[in-house]
Amino acid sequence: MKKLRPDLIHRRNHPHIQPIRDLQIRNERERTNNFFVDGLRFVHRAFCNGAHIDRLIVSPDLVDATGKNFQLIEKLQRKGVPVSYVTGDVYKSICTAEDAQGFGAVIRRRIYKLRKVAPGRGTCWLAVSSIRSPGNLGTIMRTAEAVCAAGIIMIGDNIDPFHPATVRASMGSVFSLILVRTTMSEFARWAVDNESFVVGSSPSANLDYRLVAYPQRTVLFIGDERKGLSAEQLEACSVVVSIPMSDSLDSLNVSIATSVILYEIHNQMRPPSLQLCPPAG
Amino acid sequence: MKKLRPDLIHRRNHPHIQPIRDLQIRNERERTNNFFVDGLRFVHRAFCNGAHIDRLIVSPDLVDATGKNFQLIEKLQRKGVPVSYVTGDVYKSICTAEDAQGFGAVIRRRIYKLRKVAPGRGTCWLAVSSIRSPGNLGTIMRTAEAVCAAGIIMIGDNIDPFHPATVRASMGSVFSLILVRTTMSEFARWAVDNESFVVGSSPSANLDYRLVAYPQRTVLFIGDERKGLSAEQLEACSVVVSIPMSDSLDSLNVSIATSVILYEIHNQMRPPSLQLCPPAG
Repeated sequence: MKKLRPDLIHRRNHPHIQPIRDLQIRNERERTNNFFVDGLRFVHRAFCNGAHIDRLIVSPDLVDATGKNFQLIEKLQRKGVPVSYVTGDVYKSICTAEDAQGFGAVIRRRIYKLRKVAPGRGTCWLAVSSIRSPGNLGTIMRTAEAVCAAGIIMIGDNIDPFHPATVRASMGSVFSLILVRTTMSEFARWAVDNESFVVGSSPSANLDYRLVAYPQRTVLFIGDERKGLSAEQLEACSVVVSIPMSDSLDSLNVSIATSVILYEIHNQMRPPSLQLCPPAG
Repeated sequence: MKKLRPDLIHRRNHPHIQPIRDLQIRNERERTNNFFVDGLRFVHRAFCNGAHIDRLIVSPDLVDATGKNFQLIEKLQRKGVPVSYVTGDVYKSICTAEDAQGFGAVIRRRIYKLRKVAPGRGTCWLAVSSIRSPGNLGTIMRTAEAVCAAGIIMIGDNIDPFHPATVRASMGSVFSLILVRTTMSEFARWAVDNESFVVGSSPSANLDYRLVAYPQRTVLFIGDERKGLSAEQLEACSVVVSIPMSDSLDSLNVSIATSVILYEIHNQMRPPSLQLCPPAG
């Protein structure tokens, strides 16, 4: 096994490092169109899903740059991706996760326009306008990939799928789902034009989520955890469903509610005897 | 409306305050058999579920101690619960949540022995031996209450249902579920003696979770997120199920997987036309 002995970057304000540290801030991610991910698994999934990888950052203080790790470094170098080797201290200045792996990458954000995407793709689409916890959003993305959903339609500017905690909780689904940004009015028009079946989810709805036969072109539209769906959002819905629960509770965690309904849609489309679905993306 | 004008505790090391701050540490919770909860909703649910409330802590700097809040203070005072009024600074020294509400209580932990609980109670029991994130455990407890599960059987000493992040994510389900602590061997014996149907959950199992007819006396047994169920744990299972998912992923978040299966059990027991279930606990 070949052992790398590169020169390490020791300075936190090195011109390759400072801009990566700034990617912790949403404004900087949007200005540069880049985000940073930590972890071999994530870099590997980005690579397999054809993401544009801007730079690989490896800290031999934290990770063993041999074996699988080395193979990925070599593969990326052959594609022309530059690699920076940094000290553990420098790495931890750009990745604040407690268990920073020391193997990360700067990756180009990829967000599509709504008019470019096919309404009937995958099990369904998921539309969201506000999810308060970045971790919940990432968990929802992970389930969306699990049920072979096409992707996430982000309505308005609230949602940031590239927040470090979201990327982390998504376990890399951020790379395989199609991410779309649109406005509420554009979404409503698109849904009508494409004969989509928009299913609102709201704890106050009377319709049991299991009583709906979900057709092709279903879009599951998740309301805000506290405020639910607005009047304008409800108007875009074909039906609004809720999940029955004990009277002693008024709601489920938003990632749980979304996942339970996603699995119902998935289950209706794929009966138990026919389980396999192609990888999404 | 009556406005309270009590003397406030200003000192962080006041003899009523220091022991509450220490409850952030698990050892202290276990030594004193108490834990601290922040939030009117939580104190209210503790009260409604008959929890023993040791002391109420209110910070008029953070919360308006009139209206609903005042009614609960009065109710608890009538029951003989002492109330300490503290400054915002002192309150934030005992409750580290960013959005500390300024209305909290010290509450007695309530953990039952396995031989004291009824195997056929509620929709099912949930058995867990290791959940890595306190938030995930709380989210699982919230879903368990939603589906009218009887409670949580904690196997071994890993699980702490009174961690502040767990209590918070449970939205108060920690008060309505029956919490049981036992050992693996005692659990295995109890399951056999009571003819329980123990359903293991493991991403590597071949049996689709929807292909099982869940009987009365079902216990859903959740394995570790990374290691799954151990050989000893598998031996106690009647069946082991998994949730089908895209080939591109190897697992779901543990709170999602648990919730999807809990809802399947709940749905089988309560068809769509018959949704209401009595509050758990």
